Amino acid sequence: MAFINEHYLKLKAGYLFPEIGRRVKAFAAAHPEAQIIRLGIGDVTEPLPPAVIAALHKAVDEMAARETFQGYGPEQGYEFLREAIARNDFQARGCDIAADEIFVSDGSKCDTGNILDVFGPDNVIAVTDPVYPVYVDTNVMAGHTGSANDRGEFAGLVYLPATAENGFTPDLPKRKVDIIYLCYPNNPTGAVASKETLAKWVAYAAREKAVIFYDAAYEAYISDASIPHSIYEVPGAREVAIEFRSFSKTAGFTGVRCACTVVPKTLAGSTHNGARCELHKLWTRRHTTKFNGVSYVTQRAAEAVYSADGRQQVRQIIAHYMGNAKLIRETLAGLGLQTYGGVNAPYVWVKTPGRTPSWDFFDTLLATANVVVTPGSGFGAAGEGYFRVSAFNSRENVEEAMQRLREKLR
Amino acid sequence: MAFINEHYLKLKAGYLFPEIGRRVKAFAAAHPEAQIIRLGIGDVTEPLPPAVIAALHKAVDEMAARETFQGYGPEQGYEFLREAIARNDFQARGCDIAADEIFVSDGSKCDTGNILDVFGPDNVIAVTDPVYPVYVDTNVMAGHTGSANDRGEFAGLVYLPATAENGFTPDLPKRKVDIIYLCYPNNPTGAVASKETLAKWVAYAAREKAVIFYDAAYEAYISDASIPHSIYEVPGAREVAIEFRSFSKTAGFTGVRCACTVVPKTLAGSTHNGARCELHKLWTRRHTTKFNGVSYVTQRAAEAVYSADGRQQVRQIIAHYMGNAKLIRETLAGLGLQTYGGVNAPYVWVKTPGRTPSWDFFDTLLATANVVVTPGSGFGAAGEGYFRVSAFNSRENVEEAMQRLREKLR
Repeated sequence: MAFINEHYLKLKAGYLFPEIGRRVKAFAAAHPEAQIIRLGIGDVTEPLPPAVIAALHKAVDEMAARETFQGYGPEQGYEFLREAIARNDFQARGCDIAADEIFVSDGSKCDTGNILDVFGPDNVIAVTDPVYPVYVDTNVMAGHTGSANDRGEFAGLVYLPATAENGFTPDLPKRKVDIIYLCYPNNPTGAVASKETLAKWVAYAAREKAVIFYDAAYEAYISDASIPHSIYEVPGAREVAIEFRSFSKTAGFTGVRCACTVVPKTLAGSTHNGARCELHKLWTRRHTTKFNGVSYVTQRAAEAVYSADGRQQVRQIIAHYMGNAKLIRETLAGLGLQTYGGVNAPYVWVKTPGRTPSWDFFDTLLATANVVVTPGSGFGAAGEGYFRVSAFNSRENVEEAMQRLREKLR
Repeated sequence: MAFINEHYLKLKAGYLFPEIGRRVKAFAAAHPEAQIIRLGIGDVTEPLPPAVIAALHKAVDEMAARETFQGYGPEQGYEFLREAIARNDFQARGCDIAADEIFVSDGSKCDTGNILDVFGPDNVIAVTDPVYPVYVDTNVMAGHTGSANDRGEFAGLVYLPATAENGFTPDLPKRKVDIIYLCYPNNPTGAVASKETLAKWVAYAAREKAVIFYDAAYEAYISDASIPHSIYEVPGAREVAIEFRSFSKTAGFTGVRCACTVVPKTLAGSTHNGARCELHKLWTRRHTTKFNGVSYVTQRAAEAVYSADGRQQVRQIIAHYMGNAKLIRETLAGLGLQTYGGVNAPYVWVKTPGRTPSWDFFDTLLATANVVVTPGSGFGAAGEGYFRVSAFNSRENVEEAMQRLREKLR
């Protein structure tokens, strides 16, 4: 008799985005004439930068000739890409991160879930609320929680509320925790963390021998020069933090799949009898045994993001999306809605009008304006009464969507 | 205090292939003049088929224009690819497998490890011996075993010896098991399973409500028309088996990364209180939460494998490798060595001369002939005294390697 992992049965409904997809699909089927504009899921819409396209074609040609063909690569990623990441994303910002501390992967979503493999079952885990649902769901699947209550909160997890009152930067936990998920620029609230905020977390983690999972997937959207792009800009972070990076939102790789995870060699966890154990060694074993590396062609494309042309083209794409974010913020504020984020992040976090529940507002907006947003409650109990608007779209679509909101929400 | 997953500490040395890589690298550094020929890891060497190259270029061009750009795709894979797989690999062989039972992924190695996520901790797990090490190591990591003994056997796993005496097709287990890993054509022994053999396993699994993990990554190498390519060619397999397929060895995708896993909707596991639970639902939740789909460009490349040109080109590549396999078999047999496999599989399994331990033979062959093979003991205790020779290389390299063996092993 094969027994299933019963922890899966604790999960609520579907994962947020498939659930949105289901509702949109049902609405579209019932209203085939509706011109639906999607500002829900954070998926890029602009084509890949020309420098990336050129690198892809070149790498494909290499795969066509025996002399230049590439089979299995190193599971951790090719040296050329790990070096480019270390130099450009970390060393150039004063972070002491070496190429061999970088693990190239096919996505931050995968990595933030998979990283739990190397941690034991007895850690107290803290997440912010609202939160990117994958952090919670993967802990539920791994059996790190009890069941969910009516608000969707899972027993055993420590929720750190990010509210308008605390500027969406949660306080340190009141009870000791062992693992902390932080995401800055934040998905979904668009909040950023100052160097002081991160230093506070690094000090906490050092004191408690906790590990911070730092998700920096949106760092490229930071325009304020005082805001750190990496947690390793804070002294001591090498001893307490794992950082997740992605090419998805930076260079438009959501359909291409490339990301990386940084596990410094100075970072350790503990066995139950107190022995120190380097996490770099454990993650190397996990990554080489359960993963087979990212496509060679894709890694060449990612490398091109760091070329002079690539950098400039990526900056243009980001400027485009941030222009959308400005338009969204200003339109919603003009309608008297309370908005947050959207300045150093591609997401605008908005209070629903008149305390409308998030999913109700989602359904209404879909039905009346044919605009898809993301219901805040999908990100956790503290997200109830909010919705998230994504800046990932063409200018034309965003302008049209804002026009419809001006008509329907006035 | 962040606690690690202590099960990792039970793992023996490195994963087999990185360990081979390490020894070869050390030898190459000490002997920079040595012309090393690698017949170790099963990595393809021939360029991608022209039909695949054309599809890659076309898909890259689509990513360059807003109108045809693809962001996040369905995590399970695009309909065009799932349909092509279902039709060509399964329905064409009389297997009742639908497109929505196919989950496109970035590799069978990943899938055979990840599939354990949806199963509970209390299953009795059977593997063959010798065995593809990932099956064992991922169970160790997941805490499904105790420690290893001196022979490298982990407590709690049921080992099914595949020996020359039983034609490398193990008998049914003597004790009841819940999950069984089978791999045919077999890696490493090159053995195949007849329909009768598979029917015996399907009947066993049906009787015990066990689940079979069927790894068919090498099915394209079957030349004998009586040998099944899929376990679903056996009636009743839809109720008991998950099948893993890969484009790695078929179309040379080891550096491209595309595979798929079939989870029939009729397959179920059980909760501890006896409730039936569809594995398709659990795997869908796992796949959509912890994975973000395969690159669009790669999925178009995989689709091209099923075009008329693609099929013909793939057949040519496989004929090339099987020509190598024949050369290897005949050379080694001519040297008086006992060889197995290499007829319906790209691997030749060979007894070391004079009971030499596998790693000693590996080191000797590397030092004297500069030829890399895979030590049989790396695949399990029953592999001791054997080595595996891979047919993946150019004809020229295989001829040269065989010439060296004729000189050094005579």
